[in-house]
Formats: sequence, structure tokens, C-alpha cells
Amino acid sequence: MAGSALAFVPPMSDRAPVSALAALGGTTCLVTGGLGFIGSNLALALASAGATVRVVDALVPEHGGDRRNLASEAGIDVLVADLGHHCVAERVAGADVIFNVAGQVSHHASMTDPLRDLDLNVRSHLAFLETVRRVNPAARLVLTSTRQVYGRPETLPVTEDHPARPIDVNGIDKLACEQLHLLYGTAHDLRPTILRLTNVFGPRQNLLKDDLGALPVFVRRALNGEPIRLYGDGTQRRDCLHVDDVVAALTTAAVTDAAIGAVVNIGNTESWTLREIAETLVAAAAASGLASPIEMVPWPAELTRIDIGDFATDPGRAAGLLGWRPTMSLADAAADTVRFYRRNPWYLSST
Amino acid sequence: MAGSALAFVPPMSDRAPVSALAALGGTTCLVTGGLGFIGSNLALALASAGATVRVVDALVPEHGGDRRNLASEAGIDVLVADLGHHCVAERVAGADVIFNVAGQVSHHASMTDPLRDLDLNVRSHLAFLETVRRVNPAARLVLTSTRQVYGRPETLPVTEDHPARPIDVNGIDKLACEQLHLLYGTAHDLRPTILRLTNVFGPRQNLLKDDLGALPVFVRRALNGEPIRLYGDGTQRRDCLHVDDVVAALTTAAVTDAAIGAVVNIGNTESWTLREIAETLVAAAAASGLASPIEMVPWPAELTRIDIGDFATDPGRAAGLLGWRPTMSLADAAADTVRFYRRNPWYLSST
Repeated sequence: MAGSALAFVPPMSDRAPVSALAALGGTTCLVTGGLGFIGSNLALALASAGATVRVVDALVPEHGGDRRNLASEAGIDVLVADLGHHCVAERVAGADVIFNVAGQVSHHASMTDPLRDLDLNVRSHLAFLETVRRVNPAARLVLTSTRQVYGRPETLPVTEDHPARPIDVNGIDKLACEQLHLLYGTAHDLRPTILRLTNVFGPRQNLLKDDLGALPVFVRRALNGEPIRLYGDGTQRRDCLHVDDVVAALTTAAVTDAAIGAVVNIGNTESWTLREIAETLVAAAAASGLASPIEMVPWPAELTRIDIGDFATDPGRAAGLLGWRPTMSLADAAADTVRFYRRNPWYLSST
Repeated sequence: MAGSALAFVPPMSDRAPVSALAALGGTTCLVTGGLGFIGSNLALALASAGATVRVVDALVPEHGGDRRNLASEAGIDVLVADLGHHCVAERVAGADVIFNVAGQVSHHASMTDPLRDLDLNVRSHLAFLETVRRVNPAARLVLTSTRQVYGRPETLPVTEDHPARPIDVNGIDKLACEQLHLLYGTAHDLRPTILRLTNVFGPRQNLLKDDLGALPVFVRRALNGEPIRLYGDGTQRRDCLHVDDVVAALTTAAVTDAAIGAVVNIGNTESWTLREIAETLVAAAAASGLASPIEMVPWPAELTRIDIGDFATDPGRAAGLLGWRPTMSLADAAADTVRFYRRNPWYLSST
């Protein structure tokens, strides 16, 4: 069953997550993809800490962005635009930190419309890098990437030195996006850090689209009292994080100059089977009187070829370089997630 | 000084280069980039062997393509189009082998206009892969890539297992292009082979553009009796190949089913300093009564950051998997090159 103990405690740096957010209090931060899941949680945390927050989001219909994610915070400046558009330059200018969180996350969509994934995950980012280079090269730049760039793990847990052999268009594009960010560091003096995120869940995630990852579908079904379907025998391993821990990683990276030019895994110190993760969410929902069965179904053929098998992150570099570590147990993360959506039921409504 | 001995003789397969070309005699072959340097040499060799040859070339003004490269061979069907355009489907249909040689090769241009490099080296190829998938997935598909995907070598000579850490936009884009080709193999049953080429020179190379590699500039200056300028002290090592050896590698790969899904270095078994390579070309030109001094100049600042240092290929996999090995000494390659351009002086004329 889901464990809550953290297997190791890294040496604490003098820049723990809470102080990172505090340190950003007086700054101007740009969050791309700021109407989406991770971006909106980040934007709200920054605004709460006293930062001046600008958001750029394309509100691509198939993605997870929603204006309502930021509706509670009137002080955030929101520009709806593709991050590759020249109008974004005005928001880039003067920002102390740029959190580049925008992107398409659907692996399946990247296979059915690969050119669109390339445009969204590489071309727009490259145009954005040109904008940053032109108007604000000194800004700190934090890019969210994905564990998917590793492809099928050869060894577990996966360190940043594991070969990057992505097995779908999304992974290929995200890897190219990473490399372009790093290149703009070495060749043009930008100050990038790449965070490779594991599976993330929590508040403000789009739960209605089946294409944005397994976890939001699990959450939706648990909250609706619907069956949660697991492919195969459900023993495939994953690690996952609550979005608050990811926000802490992002802000900590932004204030850690030693991380400039680095690629850092942001994952959990332990992993679980998908069945354990589903059971934890079902148990959290049960505390609200909801009951969902867990069902095993055969693997869909079109997913078998782009499946990566077991995955577990080695977050040792994040501990050593950033002083970051996950703080929330899987059970607490699931409970917090259920509480949020019970209070904000529109996330479960299709209108 | 340049050596001519081949350091090792690989075990011969039953598919030596000459027989590969013969085996393609009755087939229909599509060559993208077929008006350019490597593409035109390949197209002419295939046509001579009796293949039905189709060429698609965008004739991008800054690239090396020129209609005159194929002027001697009336039987080759030439379509001037971007390989990502839907009109290419007609040429893809029914081809037994697709040699995908098209691409931008300029590292410098990829840094000054990165979006264009992305469009030419990734987006068009991805659209082309979609076309191949749709109309002719069973064709053998051979992609020319570049040693540049490795970035700065950590160990020499460089095997295919060396980390791919490109250090310019062109290298990033070519790596993504490789990965997309391999993905279309695993996910969509295409039959790709990736050849990572070292520096290539020989007949039908555009000599007038300074942006297409050091070797054609060396060749032009040697043939014009102009000084050849080397950056730094000229001791940087490179390996290089005559284009005929590369044509042999391409055709051999196309008839070797064991190479489907493989990435294979196509380089020489030895390396030379750039000074040795320049001296060999100067010596070859001297046999025609031409004299060029070799000059050392400081490294241009904009190139220092994207320079990779010494490079030497390990072509062991090409030997083992394809039975391919380079056959021409550097001195012979230089002499053949000088002879060709002395007989075809328009390559040295700017009109």
C-alpha cells in the first residue's frame, strides 16, 4: 500500500522551499501556461507571496488551461497568446524570473497530430527563447520538462545521466525543447534550469479530458464514484507528486544560481504501483462517502508501443543542488486533492 | 601528413557496396535533397546502376542544391518542392527505397535563424514521415544525419553509444529528426536506418557558400590558389570521407535489413588535423599547377561556443552491420576532387 515515509532526508540547503517563495515576494515573475494546472498553482503561490505575476497562456482548447483557475486572484495580469507570438515580448521585458510551464502534455495527441505537438512544444518555445534573448536575457528561466524524455528506463531509479531515448513524439519534442533552452544558456547567456517532472496531481488539474495523464482520470473517477480502469495487471510502477511540492521545486530552482544550466529530476523518493496509487485515491474519496471499484482491462494496442514500463525517479540531484525534497505523503496528497475538488465541484462538470 | 592506409579491415559481408548498388538496379528510388551534394551523387550512381530515380528537392537558395548537378542524366524525375508538401506523396508512392538526404547543413545559419532550421530539419521531415506512413510505409528508408548530434566528444573515437548532446540548433534539430524516424519505425512500422555522416567532400559540392562546412571552402580556395585559413593552430582533428564512399554506405544500408532501426556512424577509420587535410588538398591542387598558402587566424568569437573540438569516428558498427568501410585514401579523394572541379569549372564561378 502507499507509503508515506521519505526514504532519505537530503542535507538541507539554506534555500528551503518556503524561503524560496518568500525570496520571490518582491520580484516580477512571468508564468507561461499560467492558466493550466501547474502554472496556475505556481502563479497563485507567487502572488500570495507578494510577487508581481504575469501570465501568458494560449488556452489551447485541448489543453488543461482554464481562466477560472486564476479567478480568485484579481491581481494577476493574464495575456492569452501563444508564447511564440511577438506580443509576449512586453510581458517578458522586466521579469526577474520566467517560469516556462506552457506545453502540450498529451502523449496520445502527439502521436495522432505530431506536427501540432512540434509546433506547441518546440517551435513556440524556440520563438519564445528568441524573445527572451532579445528583450530580457538576464532573467532566471525555469523550464518544466518531463520524465518522458528518458523513454523506457534501463535502470531504476532514473538519474539525470540515464540516456534520453524518448519513445513518443511528445518526449522527442520535450527533449528538443530542453536542449534548446540549455543551448540558449551556453550560446546566448540565458540562465536556464530544466526540471524533469514526474506525474503530478492535485488542485486545479483539468479532470475532464482523458488525454492529460492517468492521474487526473483516476481522481475524476474516484470523485464520481466511477470504476477506475487499470491496464494489464495494474502493477506498473510510478512515482508521483502533489502539485504543491512541484511549486516548491520551481520556486527553489528560480532562486538557486547553482542550478543554472542544470537538468534536475523532480520526482518522489519512492514509487508505487498504479494499483496502489488508485487505491490511495479511492480511500481518500471513501472518507467523503464515495466508493469506486478498481477494474483491470487489457492494454489498448495503440498505447502498448509508447508505454515505458515501470518508472521511478532518483531525485538526489534535486536534494543536493536545490535542497528540495517532497514533503507530502501520497495519502495526504490524495486527501488534499479530494478536499479541493469537493469544494470546487465545477472541475467535475462538463459545462 | 595525411595517411592513406586503412587502419583495420572489417569482415566482409555478402553485401559489399558494389553489389548493393547492383541490387538496387531494378528498383525505384526516391532521393530527397537529390539536387544537392550527396543527393545528386547518389541519384547519379543509382541511375547508372539502372534504378528508376525520383528526386525531390526544395532548392532552398542558401543550400547546396543546383539543377546542374543532375543535368547529365535526363532520365531522373525531379520535383522541386519542400519534402513536407503533400505533392511529394506521388513520388513516395511505389518507391522501394527512400533516401532522405534533404536538410539544412549550416550550423551558423541554425544559430542566426533557428526557426528556419527547425522548419527545414524537423518540421518538413515530420510531415514527410506522415506522408511515408500514409502512402508507403513498407519502403526502406535511409536518413542521413550528422556526427554533430554528439556535440563535444567525451571520448574518441566516437561510437554510436556516445551521449548525444548537440551544442547548436542544427545538431538539436538533426537529433530530433533521427528520433522521429526511429519512432516511426517502432510505432508505425516504417523501416528506417540512420546514418550519422562525418565531414564529406568530393564532386558536386557547392563550393561558393562559406556556410556549408569547412571542406568545400578549403577545396575552393585550393582550386583558386587562394589562402586557406585555419582557426587557431589548425591542429583540431577531423575525419572525412569522399562522397563516393558515402554513396556506398547509403546504398548498402538500403539493402541491409539487419540495419532497420539502427543508428550507424559513417566515418573514416582514421582522423587528421585540419592542417593535414588542408595540406592534402593543397598538394592535390599543386599537381595542377595551383599554389595556396595555409594561414592561421584566431577563432571567430561566434564560432567558439558551438565548436566541438577534436572529432574522430568509430565506424565499427558500419563494418559489422553493413560490411561497409571507406575505400579511398585522403590523398586519392583530394586528387579526384581536384580533377572533377578542373573539368567542371562552373562550380567555382559565382554566376
